[in-house]
Amino acid sequence: MLSVSEFKMIPIVSIVGKSDSGKTTLIEKLIPELNARGYSVGTIKHDAHSFEIDKEGKDSWRHGKAGARVVVISSSTKMAVMKKVDSEQSLDALGGYLDGEVDIILTEGYKRGDKEKIEVFRSAEHKELMSTVEDKLVAVASDVEIEAGVPRYHIDDVEGLAGFIEERYLKQGGRNRCALYVGDRPIPLKPFVQDFIRGTVEGMLTALDDIPPEGEIVIRIKGPRKDTSTLTEDA
Amino acid sequence: MLSVSEFKMIPIVSIVGKSDSGKTTLIEKLIPELNARGYSVGTIKHDAHSFEIDKEGKDSWRHGKAGARVVVISSSTKMAVMKKVDSEQSLDALGGYLDGEVDIILTEGYKRGDKEKIEVFRSAEHKELMSTVEDKLVAVASDVEIEAGVPRYHIDDVEGLAGFIEERYLKQGGRNRCALYVGDRPIPLKPFVQDFIRGTVEGMLTALDDIPPEGEIVIRIKGPRKDTSTLTEDA
Repeated sequence: MLSVSEFKMIPIVSIVGKSDSGKTTLIEKLIPELNARGYSVGTIKHDAHSFEIDKEGKDSWRHGKAGARVVVISSSTKMAVMKKVDSEQSLDALGGYLDGEVDIILTEGYKRGDKEKIEVFRSAEHKELMSTVEDKLVAVASDVEIEAGVPRYHIDDVEGLAGFIEERYLKQGGRNRCALYVGDRPIPLKPFVQDFIRGTVEGMLTALDDIPPEGEIVIRIKGPRKDTSTLTEDA
Repeated sequence: MLSVSEFKMIPIVSIVGKSDSGKTTLIEKLIPELNARGYSVGTIKHDAHSFEIDKEGKDSWRHGKAGARVVVISSSTKMAVMKKVDSEQSLDALGGYLDGEVDIILTEGYKRGDKEKIEVFRSAEHKELMSTVEDKLVAVASDVEIEAGVPRYHIDDVEGLAGFIEERYLKQGGRNRCALYVGDRPIPLKPFVQDFIRGTVEGMLTALDDIPPEGEIVIRIKGPRKDTSTLTEDA
């Protein structure tokens, strides 16, 4: 049987903390430190309000207003994808947009999410931590000594924290991987299953012309399955 | 041999025209008309300037400023992905972000792109069309009779234009498909190759537990290929 914990995707770590604890500031410091260590970083921020990302009156804003479900703006240095959704997206689904782009994702907030958490704590603002080991708290960044059963770093010790993140999430490799999603849901795969799918797909590709020798391989299959009768059986 | 024209992805149609011809206005009208016919629409707009999509000072803006390569903002009704890129993205690469999300993509502009084009033309603004059949011009929306060897609709005949788009790009089905990308590049696949890859992948999935019976299947494979020696041979 396969469990979700065995599934290797881009690691997602949630930087949590009560309001005004300094989450954004810590993330602002962690990003360049991780960049300096050679890692590409993505961030995910929840916005409780119906944020208006595009500027009123712009052409792309008018496309969205007219009913486009997805609006893309592209230039030679950046691009933006703005998408309407029917419900709050899970961190795994959001992470899918960054797959192949970054080495690690830091989320600002998502204290109720299912990802491992680093809590930011400032004694002047709050009396106690809001997360526990049961919430998947794995480290604390605080301005005072605090006991939580997990490593604790000073809130200004960005090197120490980045070292912790690197050791825990980035050194395990995970760059040679095969990821499977069905209906946006990541399907956990044991390493030998990853190797099997990978080997089969790469084998099929050798029969095709014009395949670049390098680059991520992505296969997308849509529409009704040919035969799903066996899929729900216990294999 | 496989040619790109055989490859079935989300159709991309470029709405082109000289400045002030009314591209945005036409797109604004086409989107609700296509929505009313049951199609989900995405748009792509090129921005020559280094557009600032996020608002200065916002948490997500600070993440980007600090060096995050990709920044995601998510709420229960929309999400935005802002990404730094090293060069102008191709329409096919941009379209990949909308795969599975929309039925058709309209681009505003991209007159030098390789997609089929509908040119918007207003006689008060310009003297002649800028595109020809050689540029993949497939229709004209104009306020005067104009001869271009392709169907011509009045600029206000949104129903006629939407009907043309529906007939040409949306009625061929194309929903049961298997798409392959390598290093972001779409690889054209003949229908029987699509069927073969699809059958093989679906077959492998039957051996796994916990696979939802519906939903797009996505496989991503990274890292060095096990064996690429045969890939460059003429198969």
